[in-house]
Amino acid sequence: MNKITTLFNIKYPLIQAGMIWVSGYKLAAAVSNAGGLGIIGAGSMYPEVLQEHIKKCKKATDKPFAVNVPLFYPDLETIIKIIIDEGVKIVFTSAGNPKLWTKHLQAHGITVVHVVSSVKFALKSQDAGVDAIVAEGFEAGGHNGKEETTTFTLLPMVKAQIKIPLIAAGGIATGNAMLAAMILGADAVQIGSRFVASKESSAHINFKKEVVKAKDGDTLLTLKELIPARLLKNKFFYEIEDLYKKHASVEKIKEFLGRARAKRGMFEGNLEDGELEIGQIAGLINEIKPAAEIVHEIINNYNNAVMQISALKL
Amino acid sequence: MNKITTLFNIKYPLIQAGMIWVSGYKLAAAVSNAGGLGIIGAGSMYPEVLQEHIKKCKKATDKPFAVNVPLFYPDLETIIKIIIDEGVKIVFTSAGNPKLWTKHLQAHGITVVHVVSSVKFALKSQDAGVDAIVAEGFEAGGHNGKEETTTFTLLPMVKAQIKIPLIAAGGIATGNAMLAAMILGADAVQIGSRFVASKESSAHINFKKEVVKAKDGDTLLTLKELIPARLLKNKFFYEIEDLYKKHASVEKIKEFLGRARAKRGMFEGNLEDGELEIGQIAGLINEIKPAAEIVHEIINNYNNAVMQISALKL
Repeated sequence: MNKITTLFNIKYPLIQAGMIWVSGYKLAAAVSNAGGLGIIGAGSMYPEVLQEHIKKCKKATDKPFAVNVPLFYPDLETIIKIIIDEGVKIVFTSAGNPKLWTKHLQAHGITVVHVVSSVKFALKSQDAGVDAIVAEGFEAGGHNGKEETTTFTLLPMVKAQIKIPLIAAGGIATGNAMLAAMILGADAVQIGSRFVASKESSAHINFKKEVVKAKDGDTLLTLKELIPARLLKNKFFYEIEDLYKKHASVEKIKEFLGRARAKRGMFEGNLEDGELEIGQIAGLINEIKPAAEIVHEIINNYNNAVMQISALKL
Repeated sequence: MNKITTLFNIKYPLIQAGMIWVSGYKLAAAVSNAGGLGIIGAGSMYPEVLQEHIKKCKKATDKPFAVNVPLFYPDLETIIKIIIDEGVKIVFTSAGNPKLWTKHLQAHGITVVHVVSSVKFALKSQDAGVDAIVAEGFEAGGHNGKEETTTFTLLPMVKAQIKIPLIAAGGIATGNAMLAAMILGADAVQIGSRFVASKESSAHINFKKEVVKAKDGDTLLTLKELIPARLLKNKFFYEIEDLYKKHASVEKIKEFLGRARAKRGMFEGNLEDGELEIGQIAGLINEIKPAAEIVHEIINNYNNAVMQISALKL
């Protein structure tokens, strides 16, 4: 038995990442209905919006789904209360101390997973009693670790130190990559960018098309002094780079960023002035498809790769 | 048949990276004798030193070995002439235009491989007629690409575009990682950091011990305006970071670097003021071993992973 499919009571060890402005109930329910684990990304939702998405998700699927909660969320207590009251069974926390909420959530019967980008935080999360961790590599889109450790090296280094189930994230969009991650020590994979370019994602169609167009080298990690984020290189990105070249202060950069840049880019489709968070693997994504088709294609591709592997014996 | 073992006439698709100050004839011959492909790193050798290493390597092994030549090398024509005159059969070129020397080397019966870090340069290399390419990810030690594309995403993106054999580099130190790279599209792997901590490497023992001690997060890519390089975070590294924080000019940084920093660190063992080039995967290297033992351990581990994979079927 697979540790993660058992833990979450799902068919495939394939998790759709909780992504701001992209993963509402439609995407989460589509992935859960297809046998993976769908996640509602609470990071871009007001409490009442999240509550509505949870209610709709429960109607749209009778399979398990999860909510992702960044722990720097302003209305964190309200969000946690809604999650508990609505009977959500699985929570993925990120960007904060796993000790703060893990026990409280677990006391309400919730399975807790924490996202990390280093061995140190993997161990801290295990000590905090989380049920599993996501180890996310440097190639992932959006928020990212300061150590810049890649999926290929992070996975085996984390695996060598922890005992709880391990979910790989960053750079995974195909069944072959899923199998590679499993061989490097993962029990499951979390996939983000591939689902941005899905029919059910709430990303703006302009952004989805931009993901399909992207090639290798079209993203870069920036804003390292604030919260490092991997972005598509658009006008907004180059304006940030210009500020760095002019040695702008952190205050100046924050002032330039202003508010709602991610919403403007990813949700409203302003490709010039908006923030477009996506992973390096966008270079391998060439088509917008229904989420269920993506799930089945990855799993078929994965099983084919397993079957063909004996040919690789030396 | 494996494309790379056929191309090089070697037993295992496992190549030891040509590394400045680390890979002389002793390491190259040990790896070749063990069934892999050893590479002499010409980048840190005067022409007469390289010639001596080639002569000694021919005495130390009757198996194929290669020479790595960075194409910005000052005495490039002299180096190329020595390689041809000494009858070297395989050359790995890096850091330059593959069109310059490929045909000339091939006209002398030499197999030519070029190292790239992007799809664009993979295609350029294929157009230049090279026999194979190495695709090296962001996690690799030493010199590195500006696009920061990781092994996990670079491999499938390159594989989707080229027809010639593909060698993976960056982040590989175990048989599981070797298998993961093959599943992502590689025909062989090139391994650097693991061989730094080998008995036969010419790295100073202080440096070898530092590699064994290193943990995840202990390296970072720096000197991005010059030639990006991944270094261990020592006093020298933090002094560079301080210069960046003070907005030092490129000239000022070049002046600080001076000359022979890599030799001082890696060859002379000055861990404070020397440059220590190593990959992220150093965090998984815990022992200095003979090179042959490293080769056999990786191949055994690889074959075990192949045998166990049917258990991963979903």
